[in-house]
Amino acid sequence: MAEAGGLRIGFLGTGIMGAPMARRLAAAGFPVTAWNRSAEKAGGLAADGVSVAPTPRGAAAGADVLVAMLSSGPVCDEVLFGPEGAASALAPGATILVMSSIPPQTARAQADKAREMGLSYVDAPVSGGEKGAQAGTLAIMAGGEAAVVDRLAPVFAPLGRPTHVGPAGAGSLTKLCNQLIVATTIGAVSEALVLAESGGADPARVREALLGGFADSTVLRQHGLRMVTGDFKPGGPAKYQIKDTGAALDVARAASLDLPLASATHALFEGMVANGGADLDHSALILEIKRVNGPRRG
Amino acid sequence: MAEAGGLRIGFLGTGIMGAPMARRLAAAGFPVTAWNRSAEKAGGLAADGVSVAPTPRGAAAGADVLVAMLSSGPVCDEVLFGPEGAASALAPGATILVMSSIPPQTARAQADKAREMGLSYVDAPVSGGEKGAQAGTLAIMAGGEAAVVDRLAPVFAPLGRPTHVGPAGAGSLTKLCNQLIVATTIGAVSEALVLAESGGADPARVREALLGGFADSTVLRQHGLRMVTGDFKPGGPAKYQIKDTGAALDVARAASLDLPLASATHALFEGMVANGGADLDHSALILEIKRVNGPRRG
Repeated sequence: MAEAGGLRIGFLGTGIMGAPMARRLAAAGFPVTAWNRSAEKAGGLAADGVSVAPTPRGAAAGADVLVAMLSSGPVCDEVLFGPEGAASALAPGATILVMSSIPPQTARAQADKAREMGLSYVDAPVSGGEKGAQAGTLAIMAGGEAAVVDRLAPVFAPLGRPTHVGPAGAGSLTKLCNQLIVATTIGAVSEALVLAESGGADPARVREALLGGFADSTVLRQHGLRMVTGDFKPGGPAKYQIKDTGAALDVARAASLDLPLASATHALFEGMVANGGADLDHSALILEIKRVNGPRRG
Repeated sequence: MAEAGGLRIGFLGTGIMGAPMARRLAAAGFPVTAWNRSAEKAGGLAADGVSVAPTPRGAAAGADVLVAMLSSGPVCDEVLFGPEGAASALAPGATILVMSSIPPQTARAQADKAREMGLSYVDAPVSGGEKGAQAGTLAIMAGGEAAVVDRLAPVFAPLGRPTHVGPAGAGSLTKLCNQLIVATTIGAVSEALVLAESGGADPARVREALLGGFADSTVLRQHGLRMVTGDFKPGGPAKYQIKDTGAALDVARAASLDLPLASATHALFEGMVANGGADLDHSALILEIKRVNGPRRG
């Protein structure tokens, strides 16, 4: 059990991820006041000890830490820093903790705005999905000043495992790196299983044979299983995967970095989405590899 | 402990991998007769209950199963099927078990020759390296007729975990798939860590943050650790990696398969080898990603 340590928490965005996170913070002893755009979602939290505010500023008022778990960078910008933005309701010295997945450049700009307002800022996106949020086992990638990230340890404790990866923006960049590795590994496993099948090997048994060796990965285990069983209900739809790899390539381009595997992976997902695969799980990239190689592949 | 079941084993090639494998078979109760091109390597096995023969035919005479753990496809061809080849010393009904990593087309051709001689044939390359060979924990990718692979179960038991992946050649193809996934995942992790570093995140902490999530893999754990510590002593040198990815692309080309990530990965390793990285561990691909992106990257 984390020490609540007297910190009062405001929580913006109680969707699929935010709701269980707010619940876990309240259960750990923090006073939590939450806001959500559609009020009925936040309403269900009251029974679990979460106060509900009618506006973002209402959730921020009196908070020491204001968590944002909203749908995108622009939504975070608007809810935190727009007219009626929540940031201006915070007392000087409070911390904005953005746990949404947003572009690194957006996180850095938000950190600058926060600093001008006398506020601290940490971007700390997560990996682990709804299950991780419910179980408090999220991987948390935190960017910001070390002292501020350290002070947030009791807030992170009920949510998962934090790693301080660098200054503001570094958390969001790390999340993009995570998505890039996942996408490229899905591509690698897809190509290998298509090659195996073309040569008369059984893809399901090939996957089985590779478990535990150097080719083993969470992708081989989870996405690879979807590939060999043909279960492509998302999960992580290709249309979101393509946004992530696109955002990673934007960052690379801005840094004049050429990343050939990332580019080739993004192009494959673009082909998949253009050919009707947008709403399939990203593991269905194997179907795209088969498609471009002609109808003879099962 | 495996049941030796009365099978007599001939063993060709007692190098880094073959010696501990022959030892484990002898320790499991099989009569094992080994041959090695440089006799002194085989000589050391006598103390562990392995008989040593002066010629390949001497190791094969009287064997029910003839294991080949030699350095390449051409060497297997010569030692098994050349003039004075060991195969012709086997009795009809015996099994040739090639555990070397050889091209799938070589394995299929050897299977045909074996069939013409009244012999069974299984290609069963392994993954797990010297440590896996010593511990009996190799991943064994077996191609051949199901009944023959089943009969070999007691022979595989002291060596590791076998998976029957398809007909003759499928084992070798699976090994290439393993190598392809490893190479591409090394590329994916390299690109992600270079991107992270370029944006001010600490690559070592980024790797740490991603452990346990969807981006996790044996490559992230082992090769990724080498990347962030700069320990590029092989391990698996790039010059061997490039042979494997090249062989995989040969098979793909012969099947008219376009595998864009495999091609891009192979090109990256070609650049690494051409620029002096041939003898570095394949995880040093991260240096090549930095090199092509100019000297400003650490």
